[in-house]
Amino acid sequence: MTVTAPQGFRASGVAAGLKPSGKPDVALVVNDGPSDVAAAVFTTNRCKANPVLWSEQVMADRRAKAVVLNSGGANCYTGPTGFQTTHASAELVAQRLGFGAIDVVVCSTGLIGEELDRDKLTAGIEKAVTELSTRGGAAAAEAIMTTDTRSKQTVREGDGYTIGGMAKGAGMLAPALATMLVVVTTDAAIDSETADRALRAATRVTFDRLDSDGCMSTNDTVLLMCSGASGKTPDADEFTALLTEVCHDLAQQLLGDAEGSEHDIAIQVVNAATEDDALAVGRAIARSNLFKTAVYGKDPNWGRILAAVGTTEAAFEPSELDVAFNGVWICRGGAPGEPRDAVDLSGREVTVTVDLKAGQQSATIWTNDLTKAYVHENSAYST
Amino acid sequence: MTVTAPQGFRASGVAAGLKPSGKPDVALVVNDGPSDVAAAVFTTNRCKANPVLWSEQVMADRRAKAVVLNSGGANCYTGPTGFQTTHASAELVAQRLGFGAIDVVVCSTGLIGEELDRDKLTAGIEKAVTELSTRGGAAAAEAIMTTDTRSKQTVREGDGYTIGGMAKGAGMLAPALATMLVVVTTDAAIDSETADRALRAATRVTFDRLDSDGCMSTNDTVLLMCSGASGKTPDADEFTALLTEVCHDLAQQLLGDAEGSEHDIAIQVVNAATEDDALAVGRAIARSNLFKTAVYGKDPNWGRILAAVGTTEAAFEPSELDVAFNGVWICRGGAPGEPRDAVDLSGREVTVTVDLKAGQQSATIWTNDLTKAYVHENSAYST
Repeated sequence: MTVTAPQGFRASGVAAGLKPSGKPDVALVVNDGPSDVAAAVFTTNRCKANPVLWSEQVMADRRAKAVVLNSGGANCYTGPTGFQTTHASAELVAQRLGFGAIDVVVCSTGLIGEELDRDKLTAGIEKAVTELSTRGGAAAAEAIMTTDTRSKQTVREGDGYTIGGMAKGAGMLAPALATMLVVVTTDAAIDSETADRALRAATRVTFDRLDSDGCMSTNDTVLLMCSGASGKTPDADEFTALLTEVCHDLAQQLLGDAEGSEHDIAIQVVNAATEDDALAVGRAIARSNLFKTAVYGKDPNWGRILAAVGTTEAAFEPSELDVAFNGVWICRGGAPGEPRDAVDLSGREVTVTVDLKAGQQSATIWTNDLTKAYVHENSAYST
Repeated sequence: MTVTAPQGFRASGVAAGLKPSGKPDVALVVNDGPSDVAAAVFTTNRCKANPVLWSEQVMADRRAKAVVLNSGGANCYTGPTGFQTTHASAELVAQRLGFGAIDVVVCSTGLIGEELDRDKLTAGIEKAVTELSTRGGAAAAEAIMTTDTRSKQTVREGDGYTIGGMAKGAGMLAPALATMLVVVTTDAAIDSETADRALRAATRVTFDRLDSDGCMSTNDTVLLMCSGASGKTPDADEFTALLTEVCHDLAQQLLGDAEGSEHDIAIQVVNAATEDDALAVGRAIARSNLFKTAVYGKDPNWGRILAAVGTTEAAFEPSELDVAFNGVWICRGGAPGEPRDAVDLSGREVTVTVDLKAGQQSATIWTNDLTKAYVHENSAYST
């Protein structure tokens, strides 16, 4: 079950020939209402792709009736021609479905810096419109995949309403959003203010804390569309909590499918003076190639962790730092603690805990190891 | 020719058994004066190794009569016992040579988080003292190697004086110093103020702009010792220029021997509003794993460069950015320019030029590609 699990949504996924492989590459998700409330967060990269430049305008009024997504080309750094292609996609969807282009969000993913074939995309959108279905969510999720090895979908049931979601992303997974496209739908009846607040709260502790390879994308979009078709208006906090669950689930699916990765690493920073300190320390560790290669080599190299912690301005005393791998405190007081060979890193899940002993705040950043397969995948193919 | 090229210096390099391989691992460089002026810059990492904590105290008066260096163990994050080992090394050198421990700089490199064998180190120092020679520079340079595949040495002749240098470093090469130990000697007769200013000016545009793998070390030390034995006092600017040449030469040797690297990449950022902007953009690109893997794959992927530029707060307009690989402007105005296949990345040297079109400042950052061999070297062995 996926974006068509909630009432009021139709979706489709078709092959338009944008991908050389001939696999599905155009997806459409339509909100049939009665509400068209929506919320979105976009990449904070200043060099944004054309679909992001367009969709930011669409979302200015916090309303959207449809989102059209393509893989097989990011339409990024393609200049005015590329922007026209994005605009033409929105126009076409709007025309066929009987509303305005300014209600159509556009997302693209794939190669950066190459033009998207407008004719193929147009033909694909025509086909996607004819195949719209209340059971089309899985097809849509498949059509947005790039280097993903599997499609990412989830659904959660609230009290009288449903939230469904799909995501794509495997590389360029970094802070303040990964190279990800995420569409979340709900039939809850909520206002745009509530939707916006809930989405920002949910992404802040999920997608924003995923830092697979430190590379911030140009196309990231997380879109929430609310049909109101259930007639149910949940409590805002309850809705936010359920939405956070959905985002967490999708974020973990992205983590688990990161390019070439062999380990999913949760970096828990505890007893920080502030949450910002905890995040800064977590991100510094997540971006240390030496730490990430050590985990790939199943080596609980806490020295590389302290070296990364030491690059931050967080509050801590170097001689008081404790570090655990999977619960074994192999560094105590900035020096060797329990024996390193008590740590087993053979499983996919690794938890690193860093105790700053400087306060009561904590945060977790999720990352992956750095493997030969990551290097291979990102050197042998343009993305 | 190396640190013993200038008059007034003796050096040695011996095998103390700290390295399992049995290769040389203890080096000693002694300044026989008449002057004992010295200057040093250390890692800015807040989690510093014991020898750095010690040597910062030694350098408080900007004087030093000797430096003892060991490979085969970084003596980092080894607590009070480790600090005592560092202190004992300085005491021993001082005792044997007839001055105070507070005039002896100590440097260590190798594994982090493991204790250094004090008995072996002590025996090695005793041996190093007996082997001191005015022709011992090459032996000293060899004894500080870790994963280096070759020793790094250089010498430059000034007008009546000489500057010699040696360096080690192959990984953890990052900003505000790399995992490097550098000893530079000169027989110029200069005061401590001039020495300090010259060393800071030289490192600012050489070692500080080397960002091989984004990982800041815990042991970095760049030491300048001045014997004054030539009796010549050069003009401060002229001395700084020659010292900068020495540091640049050593920095390029470090770059060329970076772990597993296949390309040396110069990232030139031009027409920036400020030098800080140029540096921020250069560093952001140098730390993009996606950019670095692309160069490894000989792919002039300018899209990944723009994605990195977009993460900075430098002044620029995304739609005005130009990017060249080896002089071919394949990105013009944030969109495709010259054909990508006009770029040849088969050689080791790669120059990336980013034109921000926002001012008159520029800066160059040097980095390496990210290769399978880097991952292998840093996952298969603890360092």
